[in-house]
Amino acid sequence: MLSFENDYNVGAHPLVLKALMDTNLIRQPGYGNDDFCRSAAEKIRAACACPEAEVFFISGGTQTNQVVISSLLRSYEGVLSAVTGHVNGHEAGAIEYSGHKVLTLPQHEGKIDRLELEAWIKSFYADESHEHMVFPGMVYISHPTEYGTLYSKAELESLFQVCRRYDLPLFLDGARLGYGLMSRSTDLSLEDIARLCDVFYIGGTKVGALCGEALVFTHKNAPEHFPTLIKQRGAMLAKGRLLGVQFDALFTDRLYFAIGSHAIEKAERLKQMFRKRGYAFYLDSPTNQQFIVLPDEKAEELRQHVRFTVWEKPDEKHTVARFCTSWATTDEELDELEALI
Amino acid sequence: MLSFENDYNVGAHPLVLKALMDTNLIRQPGYGNDDFCRSAAEKIRAACACPEAEVFFISGGTQTNQVVISSLLRSYEGVLSAVTGHVNGHEAGAIEYSGHKVLTLPQHEGKIDRLELEAWIKSFYADESHEHMVFPGMVYISHPTEYGTLYSKAELESLFQVCRRYDLPLFLDGARLGYGLMSRSTDLSLEDIARLCDVFYIGGTKVGALCGEALVFTHKNAPEHFPTLIKQRGAMLAKGRLLGVQFDALFTDRLYFAIGSHAIEKAERLKQMFRKRGYAFYLDSPTNQQFIVLPDEKAEELRQHVRFTVWEKPDEKHTVARFCTSWATTDEELDELEALI
Amino acid sequence: MLSFENDYNVGAHPLVLKALMDTNLIRQPGYGNDDFCRSAAEKIRAACACPEAEVFFISGGTQTNQVVISSLLRSYEGVLSAVTGHVNGHEAGAIEYSGHKVLTLPQHEGKIDRLELEAWIKSFYADESHEHMVFPGMVYISHPTEYGTLYSKAELESLFQVCRRYDLPLFLDGARLGYGLMSRSTDLSLEDIARLCDVFYIGGTKVGALCGEALVFTHKNAPEHFPTLIKQRGAMLAKGRLLGVQFDALFTDRLYFAIGSHAIEKAERLKQMFRKRGYAFYLDSPTNQQFIVLPDEKAEELRQHVRFTVWEKPDEKHTVARFCTSWATTDEELDELEALI
Amino acid sequence: MLSFENDYNVGAHPLVLKALMDTNLIRQPGYGNDDFCRSAAEKIRAACACPEAEVFFISGGTQTNQVVISSLLRSYEGVLSAVTGHVNGHEAGAIEYSGHKVLTLPQHEGKIDRLELEAWIKSFYADESHEHMVFPGMVYISHPTEYGTLYSKAELESLFQVCRRYDLPLFLDGARLGYGLMSRSTDLSLEDIARLCDVFYIGGTKVGALCGEALVFTHKNAPEHFPTLIKQRGAMLAKGRLLGVQFDALFTDRLYFAIGSHAIEKAERLKQMFRKRGYAFYLDSPTNQQFIVLPDEKAEELRQHVRFTVWEKPDEKHTVARFCTSWATTDEELDELEALI
Repeated sequence: MLSFENDYNVGAHPLVLKALMDTNLIRQPGYGNDDFCRSAAEKIRAACACPEAEVFFISGGTQTNQVVISSLLRSYEGVLSAVTGHVNGHEAGAIEYSGHKVLTLPQHEGKIDRLELEAWIKSFYADESHEHMVFPGMVYISHPTEYGTLYSKAELESLFQVCRRYDLPLFLDGARLGYGLMSRSTDLSLEDIARLCDVFYIGGTKVGALCGEALVFTHKNAPEHFPTLIKQRGAMLAKGRLLGVQFDALFTDRLYFAIGSHAIEKAERLKQMFRKRGYAFYLDSPTNQQFIVLPDEKAEELRQHVRFTVWEKPDEKHTVARFCTSWATTDEELDELEALI
Repeated sequence: MLSFENDYNVGAHPLVLKALMDTNLIRQPGYGNDDFCRSAAEKIRAACACPEAEVFFISGGTQTNQVVISSLLRSYEGVLSAVTGHVNGHEAGAIEYSGHKVLTLPQHEGKIDRLELEAWIKSFYADESHEHMVFPGMVYISHPTEYGTLYSKAELESLFQVCRRYDLPLFLDGARLGYGLMSRSTDLSLEDIARLCDVFYIGGTKVGALCGEALVFTHKNAPEHFPTLIKQRGAMLAKGRLLGVQFDALFTDRLYFAIGSHAIEKAERLKQMFRKRGYAFYLDSPTNQQFIVLPDEKAEELRQHVRFTVWEKPDEKHTVARFCTSWATTDEELDELEALI
Repeated sequence: MLSFENDYNVGAHPLVLKALMDTNLIRQPGYGNDDFCRSAAEKIRAACACPEAEVFFISGGTQTNQVVISSLLRSYEGVLSAVTGHVNGHEAGAIEYSGHKVLTLPQHEGKIDRLELEAWIKSFYADESHEHMVFPGMVYISHPTEYGTLYSKAELESLFQVCRRYDLPLFLDGARLGYGLMSRSTDLSLEDIARLCDVFYIGGTKVGALCGEALVFTHKNAPEHFPTLIKQRGAMLAKGRLLGVQFDALFTDRLYFAIGSHAIEKAERLKQMFRKRGYAFYLDSPTNQQFIVLPDEKAEELRQHVRFTVWEKPDEKHTVARFCTSWATTDEELDELEALI
Repeated sequence: MLSFENDYNVGAHPLVLKALMDTNLIRQPGYGNDDFCRSAAEKIRAACACPEAEVFFISGGTQTNQVVISSLLRSYEGVLSAVTGHVNGHEAGAIEYSGHKVLTLPQHEGKIDRLELEAWIKSFYADESHEHMVFPGMVYISHPTEYGTLYSKAELESLFQVCRRYDLPLFLDGARLGYGLMSRSTDLSLEDIARLCDVFYIGGTKVGALCGEALVFTHKNAPEHFPTLIKQRGAMLAKGRLLGVQFDALFTDRLYFAIGSHAIEKAERLKQMFRKRGYAFYLDSPTNQQFIVLPDEKAEELRQHVRFTVWEKPDEKHTVARFCTSWATTDEELDELEALI
């Protein structure tokens, strides 16, 4: 069975696994106080060109979102997000579980618009009864978004300016950041992101690691006693080294970027394949997630041979199918897929 | 530098790592719906002689405690624990963060006493104002305890009877269960534990895995939609396979038990070494954590060459030092230690 | 200064105050275990024709919503509400503070539609990833709504049927219930409401009391240890009698209904006054809240003499102004207002 | 039936009720933005000799404790309290429900000791693993305590110094403050308390009001957007005037102090009565709660004629009975009681 349903259906990139093997017997302190975490953090600071960045490693994306949002918000504040933001719809209420409302903005192919953001904030403060409402406390964006789309540098800059104006931290969920950074259509580098966000994370789970996200606070703005906050939310690993070793490998010899490139290259080929056969695309994604509109019978037929994700039903007779590539996608798999479509 | 400060200062047992390598390229669904998790669960059910057990895999101990306790308790209930229980003192308030009080009982070398437990419950219900108090909702014990001690079968049976009588689930934190099961002084098997607890976990992080605990509900008593509850608390890994593969390896050819035996054997040797030199023990631990009373100067001197944990100060001139063994402890390390003490 | 800005700008109805005076020196137990609460509950059960109803008294509306919703929902569930529902927008995140998401439905003059409700639920369960989402756990409606509108009996019946079908409790927020019950356009009696809701409350604060809401569970469905849950949320008054005495008075000789009638009569006159002068209405409210579209200059001018609430700005040149009546509204006040408009 | 079981078994002091009558028809804004709240706050500032005090009115004691503690603490902090503190044992877990641990100190007749407090804090920071523990975030004391006892000025000053030294806010629960202020054995004035606490409240519910506590932040240290925090916790009354009017009356012509004096006078007579008859006291309370050791048969006999609270069983044959006086206690009631004992 071919498998394109997501970017986390195999284990880790071989070089990541190798690093785990090579370091296995080195005795180190627990809870992230190990040399591997230190080394990985150092390499990430360098890759971000952000020497004062504070870097923490957390097992997964939902957990990272929950820890960051609940730690940065004050009790009376909520987080602004596109209605399609992962924190709004697909984290089983993890943000609300931590006591905070997700305040939703319209989405445009998964992205928020800086004019709508600013209008929302102005309208909030103009409301005479806003003291009875949830205050905006931070802005959450995903990059790539849940639809694989990307913010341009100009867009991110203008969002950041709005955030600055209203003193709202800008938090970028980079669960798939590697694919965004290596997209052929992006003008945003990792350095740009570190400059234009208050906090963001570099996704590992979906970009070649077994698990783990590298969380970056860009200007000494990590909450006081952040490790205690992590622990309190159940998110601290005793063997923190597991995350340190993996990110150290990912940021050695630009492996993280190579993984991104590989997946993008395969996604571009996949895109061409479907385009050539005349399929419509639900939207134009420049990253490793591709959303293709399939006639229902075709979807049914394909399903016998290949795993993909049913994204939504745009009408009675069609299905939007998501196909993902990753570091592990091979040309052989694409050949097989091509034969099927 | 020698290192005995804990049982999580290296990576994983080589056979666990090997299993990760061997399975790395097999494509599988995410979120614990993979064949490895299924296989590991099956092997655990067999090892527990509990065919109806429901098994879930979670990254770490604090997280498992938080997920279980907050999912099983009703809002007006708290969890009964020894005052020394990990959930009471060393999890940064993770239980309270989830909205619940830890109701403390006296500890006896880390254990609770069934008479004191029953007296507490009776006194609670006898109090005319108990509707203004936190109700007891479950009983938490650790085995081995934070002091390395173990419940006997008779003790566990009588605790379980009290819990049955008052309809309180009994939850056993087995972060170090492997060392308890292979202790030379225990009469409790894994089958017994599955029979005498409502829910318990088999610790992986401290017993040879990179991370992960196997949570077992013993009689179809897992909360409804438990995976959603896990997700909501940030505790669900996209690559759930990471935990499944490891536990599958640990429960193949009794590796989990072999790891426990190895550590116990080394702990017994360590114990003899200190005993022979005339050191006093803070208490008699039959597992892989040993608590030795060191004169302060000796502690200071040792510290130059070996890492251990300062547990407490029993008086002005002595230090209680904790030394741990694990699957990775070697006779060479013990030889070196012997030369130092 | 004339004052029509809300229905809680004076103290209590004189007969409510008199009851507080008359009972002041009678010694009674605390926490709602007093004869007044018992008597009031009995009268409410009779007025609802619901002999098995369980009645609790809580100080205010936000608190009642928070207590009910957080007590009835399981951790993984949220509450369905119109996007304009009070719990969604105007309670400072009280529901999310208790750990739960408000799941929003479109509003139609403040009401939800049963077809949209059912479609939402079906779509939720049809989503393959719904285990990663917040489950629907109850349905919240307000009656009258935030726009003064009312559900018809047929509408409430069909909502109730949908709720039954999907095993969702239906919760009716009756902060202004008295005005709904006495509206000239309603076909819903208090008995109907008790029959067609799982839980609802009879608002006191906005209908003649100093404070207090009477919460009614209609079929022995109050959560276990509900008083403890109330206490835990900070919502239990030591002098519970304060609420009992007031509701006992409100449900003696149909005072509650008389208050409703009075306000409706005054609202109808107010409506005629504005209509006669040619003002447009934002919508047709059959209760004590009237929403009038004022040219901005007129709004500005009126503001010098009369307090009203600026509801929203439908366009650049107009203001939607809310005018409320209550038990205390007099014809003299209306005469004065008439002279101004 | 005589009734001494608590100090909240009647309604309000007649002058408080009169104020509610007199102001009933005056139209005022809601949510505490009314003239009565403003006036009451002004009078309280004067009585405290603390012109910069910020005053808020909240319905009840548990609610006030919950709002204050959860608003002032950071997520990783808990509140230090005597093990007998109301927040620890008798608020149904309201503090934990808000996410925070109650860190307990030994009690001495209900009070905490500054040496033990300081030792606790030092020991916390000396613990190498304190980043895995709940940080101390504030100190809670009750005055009078749950046992009717009082801190001396010297004791409060030294507690305050410890709090200053470790940057911990000192919060005084004054649910029965009026009785403490007018005790014959106190050297603490309201001004002293305002000077020696960061935040405290002046209890109304138990000192002559129908409900309500006046919360005082003494040095512009109220949390930002505190009204929103109050609303979010369900603690904001629409008719905030209910609390404002009552506290305005209580702080007019020193009514609050007169109520305290009356109850103290009656408590002193009650004390003499029991002492004369040779009864032992559980401890020496200088306020309106008296704890008398009764032989069980006597307790049983008395119960037929008088309500009191069974506090605890010091041994098999005796009962500690609590008798309370209040503004409403009369000499006739005491005569009757005297005839019974």
